[in-house]
Amino acid sequence: MPRVTFTPDDVIVDVHSGENLLRAAMMADVQVTATCGGDGTCGKCRVIIEQGAADAIPSTRLSKEQLAEGSVLACLTHVTEDVVVRIPAQSRPGSVPSTHGRRAAAPLLSAEEHAARIPKHKSRPVASKYYLELPRPDLSDNADSVSRLKGALRREHRITTTAMSPEAIRQLPLALVQGEWKVTALVLEIHRATPLVIGVEPGDTTAHQHTVAVDVGTTSVEVALIDVTTDTVLAQLSEYNRQVLLGADVITRVIAGSSPAGLAQLQGLIAETITHLVNEVCDMAAVSPESVDAYVIAGNTVMTHLLFGISPASIRTEPYVPVTTQFPLVAAHDLGLPGSPVAMVVAIPCPASWLGGDIVAGVVAAGIPWTDRLTLFVDIGTNGEIVLANREWMIGCACSAGPAFEGAGILHGMRAADGAIEHVRIDDKTLEPAILTIGNVKPLGICGSGLIDCVSELFLTGALGRNGKFMPLAENSLRFREGERGPEFVLVDAQDSATGNAIVLTETDVESLMRAKAAIHAGIDVLAECVDVEIDQIEEVVVAGGFGHYLDLERAMVLGMLPELPLARFAFIGNSSLIGARRAATCGEMLKKAHDVSEMLTYVELSVNVGFMDLYMSSLFLPHTDLTRFPRSEALLSRRSGAMEAK
Amino acid sequence: MPRVTFTPDDVIVDVHSGENLLRAAMMADVQVTATCGGDGTCGKCRVIIEQGAADAIPSTRLSKEQLAEGSVLACLTHVTEDVVVRIPAQSRPGSVPSTHGRRAAAPLLSAEEHAARIPKHKSRPVASKYYLELPRPDLSDNADSVSRLKGALRREHRITTTAMSPEAIRQLPLALVQGEWKVTALVLEIHRATPLVIGVEPGDTTAHQHTVAVDVGTTSVEVALIDVTTDTVLAQLSEYNRQVLLGADVITRVIAGSSPAGLAQLQGLIAETITHLVNEVCDMAAVSPESVDAYVIAGNTVMTHLLFGISPASIRTEPYVPVTTQFPLVAAHDLGLPGSPVAMVVAIPCPASWLGGDIVAGVVAAGIPWTDRLTLFVDIGTNGEIVLANREWMIGCACSAGPAFEGAGILHGMRAADGAIEHVRIDDKTLEPAILTIGNVKPLGICGSGLIDCVSELFLTGALGRNGKFMPLAENSLRFREGERGPEFVLVDAQDSATGNAIVLTETDVESLMRAKAAIHAGIDVLAECVDVEIDQIEEVVVAGGFGHYLDLERAMVLGMLPELPLARFAFIGNSSLIGARRAATCGEMLKKAHDVSEMLTYVELSVNVGFMDLYMSSLFLPHTDLTRFPRSEALLSRRSGAMEAK
Repeated sequence: MPRVTFTPDDVIVDVHSGENLLRAAMMADVQVTATCGGDGTCGKCRVIIEQGAADAIPSTRLSKEQLAEGSVLACLTHVTEDVVVRIPAQSRPGSVPSTHGRRAAAPLLSAEEHAARIPKHKSRPVASKYYLELPRPDLSDNADSVSRLKGALRREHRITTTAMSPEAIRQLPLALVQGEWKVTALVLEIHRATPLVIGVEPGDTTAHQHTVAVDVGTTSVEVALIDVTTDTVLAQLSEYNRQVLLGADVITRVIAGSSPAGLAQLQGLIAETITHLVNEVCDMAAVSPESVDAYVIAGNTVMTHLLFGISPASIRTEPYVPVTTQFPLVAAHDLGLPGSPVAMVVAIPCPASWLGGDIVAGVVAAGIPWTDRLTLFVDIGTNGEIVLANREWMIGCACSAGPAFEGAGILHGMRAADGAIEHVRIDDKTLEPAILTIGNVKPLGICGSGLIDCVSELFLTGALGRNGKFMPLAENSLRFREGERGPEFVLVDAQDSATGNAIVLTETDVESLMRAKAAIHAGIDVLAECVDVEIDQIEEVVVAGGFGHYLDLERAMVLGMLPELPLARFAFIGNSSLIGARRAATCGEMLKKAHDVSEMLTYVELSVNVGFMDLYMSSLFLPHTDLTRFPRSEALLSRRSGAMEAK
Repeated sequence: MPRVTFTPDDVIVDVHSGENLLRAAMMADVQVTATCGGDGTCGKCRVIIEQGAADAIPSTRLSKEQLAEGSVLACLTHVTEDVVVRIPAQSRPGSVPSTHGRRAAAPLLSAEEHAARIPKHKSRPVASKYYLELPRPDLSDNADSVSRLKGALRREHRITTTAMSPEAIRQLPLALVQGEWKVTALVLEIHRATPLVIGVEPGDTTAHQHTVAVDVGTTSVEVALIDVTTDTVLAQLSEYNRQVLLGADVITRVIAGSSPAGLAQLQGLIAETITHLVNEVCDMAAVSPESVDAYVIAGNTVMTHLLFGISPASIRTEPYVPVTTQFPLVAAHDLGLPGSPVAMVVAIPCPASWLGGDIVAGVVAAGIPWTDRLTLFVDIGTNGEIVLANREWMIGCACSAGPAFEGAGILHGMRAADGAIEHVRIDDKTLEPAILTIGNVKPLGICGSGLIDCVSELFLTGALGRNGKFMPLAENSLRFREGERGPEFVLVDAQDSATGNAIVLTETDVESLMRAKAAIHAGIDVLAECVDVEIDQIEEVVVAGGFGHYLDLERAMVLGMLPELPLARFAFIGNSSLIGARRAATCGEMLKKAHDVSEMLTYVELSVNVGFMDLYMSSLFLPHTDLTRFPRSEALLSRRSGAMEAK
C-alpha cells in the first residue's frame, strides 16, 4: 500500500493504490480546502508533491510557477507510490477564526444592553431538574413507581406530567433503590407538548444542570455551555464546520446531502464538529460531557436538516421547499452527540428553505417580538438574511450574496483567519495601500471586511468608477497592472506576502463584491416595498453575525450595501443565533417565542419576486444608480471630483 | 480448548477449560431444562457423560441408578477435557407443545362465539396506512413537505395529526420524489395521544398492512400475524420462551433480571424468541418480516418489564410494586424485534405486579367490559389469575399456585409436550390405570391435566383420602409401593415408560397439587367475599389459557379447584391474552378498553389478605373442608363409600 506523508505536520496514512489524494487527506484528518467538493473546479486544494510521483490530471487553475514547483490539485491526483505532500498555507481552511488582535468596527451590545431588549420571564428552562422525595410504597399504597414519581412532580413542582421516556422508566428502579426514594427527575418542558420526564437520577443532583446551545453555521459552528441553575455561560467556543471538507458553500452541501451516503457523511461531520466543541467547552469548565442534559440548536435550514439526518435535496430546486420547518425531539446520542445517555436535542424552527432557525433565534435575541420600533435585522454571510419587523408583523427574505464576504470567489480571497487582510486604507494621492491583517502576520490573502475596505477606498480615491471598473487615473499608477485575468490592483507585493506571490484585487473581484452588496441592498428594498414603508422610517438596524461585527458601517454605506441611515440607529448584536439558542435553553417562553416568530414571519422568495431583479440591477453601481438615496456618499463623491479636478 | 459433543443431536462446541456444562449447552444452543436457573436445586438438568471425564459436584438429586449410568447435573459440572454428553429426553424443555392428538376437555369458543362477546366498533386499527395524493408545491404554495402531508391527512382522512416521528420525516423527501407526491403514511393512533405518523412510503402500499399480536408468557410465547386490511390472522405460532434457559419460573427470572447484565440477557432472549416466531409466521404467510408495521404485546407484568428492558426487581419483594403499569411507545428495532425500520411496539397495560396485560387482554377478549353478567375469569398456570367482574366493576387477584400444573415440583412431572401423560383413568376395583399421552407415544412423565386426572381418579376410587394421603385400601394394591420418597402410586411400569424407569405419583406430588388447587379456590372465595356475592350468583366462568383448554371441568370440581357450578356456565376461551392483543391491534377502541380495564380493576394482594389464609387452609382438603359447597362431589363420595362397604 502506498504511504502518504503530509507535511508540515508529518501526518502519515497508508492508502490503496490509486486513492484520490484529497480523500487520503480526509482519511488522515489533514484539512485541505475544497470549495467545490472535489470536482476540480475551485482550484483551492492545491498541494505540492515533494517526494515521489503521483498521477495528476492537469488543471488550468494552476499557474506556471505553481506547476513548476510541483503543485497539483489534490482532488485530481491519485496516489500509486509513496509520496511526501506539502499542504501550503493557502490550501488549509485555517484554524479557529481568532478575534485576537482584530479591529472591531463597532462595539457589540453589552450584556446589559442585550438583557434590556428582552422582557423578564419567569418561565422554566427547556430541560431542568426537580428533586423529589417520594413516599415509600407499602401494602396499603402499592402504586407503581412511575405513578409515584408523577404524583410527586405534580404535588411538589406543579408539573402535570403525563409522559415519561422509555429510558427514564428504565433508570427509575435503580435510582429509587440507590437514592432511597429520593431522586432527581430531568424534565423537558416544551410549549404545546406534554412535559416529558427524560431521566431519573438517585439523590439530589439539581446542583448540576447543563444545557448546550449551538449555532450551526455553514462555515462555523459555535457552542455555549450553559449552567442552567445560574443562567450563565460557563464556556463558549467555535470552530469550522468540518463539513467544509465536502465543500465550502451551502449548495455544494445540499448536493452532497441529497444522496443517502452523502447525507450520512455530512451528518457525521457536523456531529463530529459539535462533539469536539462540547468536549472542549466541558474541559474548559471542568464539567463532564456526561452532565449535558439537553441541546438547543439554531441553524440555517440546510444545516438543521443535515444535523437531523433529513435530506435537504428539495431546498435547492424551485419551489425551494424544506422537508420540514419544525424538527422533532431526538436523542442526542441518536445524532452522535455527547452528553448524558438521556440528553435530548431541541431545534429552533426554520420558517423557510433559506430563512432558518439561526435567523429566528436572532430575531428573538434582538428583542424584536417585544418592540414597537420598526426594526431591520440583517445577518450577512454567504446568504444575506434580512428581516423587517416589529412585534406586530414580520417579513423576511434571503439574498444569495455569494461567498465574496467569506473570501471565496475572490482571486486572493480567504476566510477571516490569521493572515487575512481585514483593514485597508489607500492614500488618495499615491494610491499606496496600508493594510492590517488578522493576527498581525504577513498577509496571506484578503477576507470580507478587507475586501469591503479595499473596494470602498479605491472608489473614494477615484481609482474605481461607479460601474466598478478601474479608472484611467488608476491605470497610470504603479499599483495597477495588467494581470493574466485583466487589470488588477496590487495590494501586497510578492516580497511582502506570506505566499511569496503578490496579493491583488481584480475587476472580477470587484464585480463579485458588487453583486453581493447589490443583492443585500435590493433585498432590503423589496421588504420595504412589500410592507410599503420608506427606508428612513426604519428605527433600528440590527446587524448580526461574526462578519457583521467587523463591518465598517461607513464603508458599507459608501458601497451601497446598507441604506444610509444615522449611525446611531445601528446596533451590532454578535452571534445572535447562539444568543437566541441560549435564551431559548434557559427560558421556555423564549422557545415558544421562537415558534411564534417562525409562524408569523412572512417569507418573500426573491428568486421569483418581480421587483427584485430591477432593484438589484439598480444597486449594481457604487453606491447605487439613484444617488439621492445616498446623500452622504454623494457628498463624498463631490469632494472626490473636486479633489481630482484640483490635481 | 476442550470440545463438548452433545448427543443425540451431535452439536459440538469448543469451550474454555473449566467451563460450566450448562453454560456450554446454552452457548451451543442445545436446550437443557434448568428450572432453578443453574444453582443445583431443581435437579432438572441431568445429563450423562458418555465419553471423557468431567468435574461434577455430587448431587443428592440423582438416584443411585442415575449415578451408576454416569449422570451428572450439568449446572454442577465443569469441563476440562473433550467429552461426549447425552441429554436425556427428560432434561429437554421439549419441542413446541403439540395439540395434535390431544384430547381437549371442552370445545373452545368458536370464532362466532368470540365475536358475539364484543360489540362491533368502527374504530381504526392501532397502526394503519393512509394513501395520500399531495398537492405539488409551487412558488405560490411552497409550504414544507411535512405540512403538506399533515394537511392531506386532515383533508382526506380527518386525522388531525400534529406529530411525526424523526424517522418518518427522514423518509418523507425520498418517498415524495419516488412516489411523485403520491405516498402512503403509516399512522399510529392511540387513544389520549396525538396521532403519530411513523413512516412514509412512496405510492399506494395500503394493500399491505401487517401487525403482530404477541402473548408473552413466562413459559410460552405465541404470536399472530394479522392482516390489518381484512382483520384476519394470516398465521399463528407458539414456542417456549427462550428465557427458560435462565430458569423456568417467573421468580427465578425476576432475580436474574434484577442485575443490569441479567436484564439485558433476558431482554435479548425474549426478543430472540419473538423474532424467531415472527420470521416463521411471516414465512408461513409468504409475507416479508419487513412489512410488519406494529406490535401489540400482552404479557404478565414481569414479562412486559423484561421485554421493555425495565428491571422487575421491585415486583418480587413486599410491597410488590411494578416500576410502571403503562408502557411507553418504543421502536421495535430498539427492542431487537424484526419489522419495518419504523415499526413500533404497543403494550397492553399491567395493572399490578401479579396481574398483567395478559389478563387485561383476556378480560377484553372475554367481552367482560360490555356484559352485565357476573363473570369469573380464571387463567390457570404457575400463577392462577382470577378476575370477578362485570362492566360496572372489576376485582382481581393472583394466587401463587406453584408450578404443579406445569409439571414442575412433581417427581415425574413435565410440560404438556409429546410423551406427557395427560389423561388417566383408574379402575376402581383393580386400581390399574389407563393412560393417554400427548402424541400417543411412550410415556415420559405427567403433565398438569394428567396430574389432575390421576389425583381425582385415585380420590374417587377411594385410594386417596380427603387429606391427600393414600388409604389402607391403596396400600394393599400392587400399584402402590414404598419408594425412596415414601409411599407412591406406580402409574407406568419401568418397562412401559420411555425413560426406562417407572413413572410414579408420590404423596408429596399430591400435596403440591392440593396446594395449587387450594390457592385458586381460596382466591375465588376471597374475591367473592370482597364484593359480597355468593359463588352460585356467578353467571359465567371463563377459563383461559392453554392449560385451561385441557382441563377436565368435572375433575377440577371433584378436587375442589373450581367451585361447583352447572357446566353450562363455563366457557373455554383459549389464549385470551393473544386474542385480546389481536383485537386491540385491529381496533383502537379495544386498546382504549384495555386501558379502562387496567384502571378500573381493583387488585387484591392475597399475601397480606387476612381472610385468604383461612380460606386456603379450608381448601386444603379434597374437595374442601365444607362438603356442602360441593354437593356433586359429596354424592360421588357417598357412592364410593357404598361401593367400598359392598366389597
